[in-house]
Amino acid sequence: MEIANLLATRMEPKREEIFETLLETDRFRLERIISTGQATPAGQWYDQEKNEWVALLSGSAGLLFEGEREPRVMEPGDYVLIPSRRRHRVEWTDPDHETVWLALHYW
Amino acid sequence: MEIANLLATRMEPKREEIFETLLETDRFRLERIISTGQATPAGQWYDQEKNEWVALLSGSAGLLFEGEREPRVMEPGDYVLIPSRRRHRVEWTDPDHETVWLALHYW
Repeated sequence: MEIANLLATRMEPKREEIFETLLETDRFRLERIISTGQATPAGQWYDQEKNEWVALLSGSAGLLFEGEREPRVMEPGDYVLIPSRRRHRVEWTDPDHETVWLALHYW
Repeated sequence: MEIANLLATRMEPKREEIFETLLETDRFRLERIISTGQATPAGQWYDQEKNEWVALLSGSAGLLFEGEREPRVMEPGDYVLIPSRRRHRVEWTDPDHETVWLALHYW
């Protein structure tokens, strides 16, 4: 049993988001995502086959669901359940601090 | 899609730990636990049928695994995988601040 840390990150800014699988079974995948200012490309939506429970642990982000006018602002500790096929996009993530997400994809 | 917050708690001290199921399927249960200074009663061990991935999100705690001399100190962001039947106990939780855990029990 090794203890690791969800918030420990390399501090240099990254061009790309970092995806790290923490735990995986045949029914779910627990993933840590680190964003450094990235957003979903203009005009694109996530349209996922799997359900996703996602929490924001540090930083902040704007999460837009299709059909809504304004993104929901997510702050540390906030979580939301995104059902399979519910189209959404990340409008923005904090440009100045790392945004750490914990995502549980399940099916 | 309602956004809720993992860290939002009622602030008054509690005699008992609070357990809240956030998400449940036939293969896992995602749970938030709030401790306010509690520990596993003396001489008792958790001996769980299910695997548990657990993260500490706020506060701090000492987690002792059977056969180890000293508890591991868990700070915010720390996580650990506790396999089924791995006996362990919570030696202490922060008496002055709420300790928020996120536990994923799976089987």
